[in-house]
Amino acid sequence: MPPWNSPMTATDFDRIRPLRWEAGALYLLDQRALPQRVSELRVADAAAAAAAIRDMVVRGAPAIGLTGAYGLVLAAQTLARAEPTASQWRAGLAAAATRLAAARPTAVHLHWALGQMQAVASAPGEVAPLLAAARAMQAADVAANRQMGARALAVIEQQAAGAGQGDRPLQVLTHCNTGSLATAGYGTALGAIRSLQAAARLAGVFATETRPWLQGARLTAWELAQEGIPVTLVTEGGAAALLAGGQIDWLIVGADRIAANGDTVNKIGTYGLMLAARANDVRTMVVAPLATVDLTLQTGRQIPIEQRAAGELLPAGADPRIGAYNPAFDVTPAALIDWWVTEHGALAAASAEAFRALAP
Amino acid sequence: MPPWNSPMTATDFDRIRPLRWEAGALYLLDQRALPQRVSELRVADAAAAAAAIRDMVVRGAPAIGLTGAYGLVLAAQTLARAEPTASQWRAGLAAAATRLAAARPTAVHLHWALGQMQAVASAPGEVAPLLAAARAMQAADVAANRQMGARALAVIEQQAAGAGQGDRPLQVLTHCNTGSLATAGYGTALGAIRSLQAAARLAGVFATETRPWLQGARLTAWELAQEGIPVTLVTEGGAAALLAGGQIDWLIVGADRIAANGDTVNKIGTYGLMLAARANDVRTMVVAPLATVDLTLQTGRQIPIEQRAAGELLPAGADPRIGAYNPAFDVTPAALIDWWVTEHGALAAASAEAFRALAP
Repeated sequence: MPPWNSPMTATDFDRIRPLRWEAGALYLLDQRALPQRVSELRVADAAAAAAAIRDMVVRGAPAIGLTGAYGLVLAAQTLARAEPTASQWRAGLAAAATRLAAARPTAVHLHWALGQMQAVASAPGEVAPLLAAARAMQAADVAANRQMGARALAVIEQQAAGAGQGDRPLQVLTHCNTGSLATAGYGTALGAIRSLQAAARLAGVFATETRPWLQGARLTAWELAQEGIPVTLVTEGGAAALLAGGQIDWLIVGADRIAANGDTVNKIGTYGLMLAARANDVRTMVVAPLATVDLTLQTGRQIPIEQRAAGELLPAGADPRIGAYNPAFDVTPAALIDWWVTEHGALAAASAEAFRALAP
Repeated sequence: MPPWNSPMTATDFDRIRPLRWEAGALYLLDQRALPQRVSELRVADAAAAAAAIRDMVVRGAPAIGLTGAYGLVLAAQTLARAEPTASQWRAGLAAAATRLAAARPTAVHLHWALGQMQAVASAPGEVAPLLAAARAMQAADVAANRQMGARALAVIEQQAAGAGQGDRPLQVLTHCNTGSLATAGYGTALGAIRSLQAAARLAGVFATETRPWLQGARLTAWELAQEGIPVTLVTEGGAAALLAGGQIDWLIVGADRIAANGDTVNKIGTYGLMLAARANDVRTMVVAPLATVDLTLQTGRQIPIEQRAAGELLPAGADPRIGAYNPAFDVTPAALIDWWVTEHGALAAASAEAFRALAP
């Protein structure tokens, strides 16, 4: 069964998986080739898993974390063949985790996943507990995303009822790719959209191109079309006109990090979309795991923003005197966000106390 | 002398020309090949001029209008060789004008330029008055753009003095290409930027990529680099974060059409930039010829917006179920615009009366 056609039913609108484990190997849907070509990459050892992360075969924090977790299972399989001592086993796994972590040094979730995996390593040469832990992590991510979807749907239905909109199907604008391709499956903001579709509350989705990597044009549009969900592409430049046109009901996005006051760091372009949504009375929602909330940060101003390479923007043959401003993320002030939805509950007003109260 | 190295001095920051007339032929800088290749296309007859307009060798309303005007000179040269009667001469020129106009049916300025040219056609076979009219049109456009630049500079210096900023060099964000490449030379919004640079009041320019045709990435960045003006590329998605960063002093853009109340139609993406500028207290300016103001339109809502082909947005191999929202322009409400600058004067508050009072 290929990962983009999971055993779940089509009525779930949840048929795509970015990775699967089968017969001792990890299979990754090669996201670099989408949408031109749907192909799998067989990953048979930890070095290949690290290379797949580095080479962007897989992207999205949860999907990268799982690739690291299964990468450690692959390392354990290799180590187990040599019948290691307890210290050889621990040292071998630690070395593999270090190499996997180095494939994306800034990926907090990858480092967390590798730590979780090492914590369950028990008797030398026993791969089964590690495989079980990776599988559990995968299942937990899908379950959390489905919770987010259910909670987002509840918020949207409550708002629609309050606004006297009845059960009219709604139009949603989203940004980047926050779907099955970015997670273990179902997705965060795209999970909310799947839940709307499953509840017959979705008229259609507008997806931004998401320059400079075009995750919206290449991945989100493909993912939604695969699920049979109506999708229309729009440039980031066109989104404000779209929001002014009166046909969009909600802007729903994911988050990379959320400060205690609700300021939200997400893919570059989010802030501009949020401004245009607010100016045109379109409601806005951030959908993300509660782990995305970092209570050590009082506001979004404390979050450093990664600047990426100029070459991602400059056209071929560009004059060497031309510079590029190419941040990976931007910060949306909390005041522009109507709802924050996590797997443990939704908030209309963000604060450290409110986020703490959501934790189970 | 190639068009991208005009006889004007480098201290003008005005060395680029999109077209030139030499020895009975029109030479166009081939904008399709920029920035990879700087090459000229020799246009020897009216059919070739129409093809150049259709194939986007040249773009920008004034530059297209001039290509049409010189195209009619080329048609006159051909007709003159056959020693036409007065009626053959008039009919031949009218037929050529119709063919040239058909190369871009929606280009109001092209149709205006062709009408002007036909009005000066006098004795049969006399090409000289037509060539003189085309040359005068070209010179008048550059002169008007230089007037806009001078008036924009005066507004900016007055604002800076009022804000107690002294003569600190300023950072400007601009959108699309409104420069020498789009006009007879100097440009409208880019002309204002050239005037700032010539007055040593410019720290640098940020240019948006301008999806989907990338006129900012391919043309504006190249044009400014050629003039030695510091330029940095930014995605439309990154512009809001840039404006929030506090380093931009002015957003300066062109206009396709301006309604009597000041609502401004310009290249798709302008409205979102204007929203982000206003949210971050960055001043905004529209620079355009007074002819861009259409007093028959009370507000921007009355202006129909052209939707372009989906294929411009969809990636290769895109699922046929994926749609595209691809308007060519958007409408910025007058309330978001601080200044409208024309060759005849600048306004801080737009109205039909105020625009009328500017007309000479």
